[in-house]
Amino acid sequence: MKITHIEHIGIAVKDMDEAIRHYEEVFGMKCYAVEEVAEQKVKTAFFQVGQTKIELLESTQADGPIGKFIEKKGEGIHHLAYAVEGIEDNLKDAEGKGVRLIDKAPRKGAEGLDIAFLHPKSTFGVLTELCEKKE
Amino acid sequence: MKITHIEHIGIAVKDMDEAIRHYEEVFGMKCYAVEEVAEQKVKTAFFQVGQTKIELLESTQADGPIGKFIEKKGEGIHHLAYAVEGIEDNLKDAEGKGVRLIDKAPRKGAEGLDIAFLHPKSTFGVLTELCEKKE
Repeated sequence: MKITHIEHIGIAVKDMDEAIRHYEEVFGMKCYAVEEVAEQKVKTAFFQVGQTKIELLESTQADGPIGKFIEKKGEGIHHLAYAVEGIEDNLKDAEGKGVRLIDKAPRKGAEGLDIAFLHPKSTFGVLTELCEKKE
Repeated sequence: MKITHIEHIGIAVKDMDEAIRHYEEVFGMKCYAVEEVAEQKVKTAFFQVGQTKIELLESTQADGPIGKFIEKKGEGIHHLAYAVEGIEDNLKDAEGKGVRLIDKAPRKGAEGLDIAFLHPKSTFGVLTELCEKKE
């Protein structure tokens, strides 16, 4: 796999407005974008921290993946996303090495990235996302 | 708070050797250091990914914080660590803004960093570490 850096860290929160306030006032970060990803039933808010983004995730519907995650585990870190070069080849490579894929092929995520998730059962409990920015 | 970048992401694993193999063979990362932090009853392994490190954590004793975490929640992301400038002032500032501190003053962590943890109840479920490299 060709990982260049950590693209973002996804954090599930119950109340996006309250969480944005906390990240801005306590951590001194600046929310530069809020975006809804209807397909994932989620609203996202982004903060840049060096090379990496913090992506806050609030469920727009209780039966969405973030709603279910919070119900089961509470608020907290939801996933870790690596920026890769050649996402399709990286997925094939990972599958060939025994990693279970949630997404067999990339799909569109927030910020126009091509994204795909690996199953946490194959990655030591970490829900892992691969991302690539294609022009 | 003056955060410059994400210093590391701490990931709790049951079997360090197996996890190191996975991070090297599947993710193509290179483990550059293994270190035991006796006080925390933990063995750590480090990988550099861009600006940020992945820190794998294996408990050396079942009653250590990582052992208890895995027993309760299973393997997965344990904490998120920000590199800051002026850790003491940042701690005071956070406390003044209502954040509950686990460490009222910095202590020594892995890689010789000054570190301090914020309580996840104050940080939307994310166990948050502040780190500073002092020469």
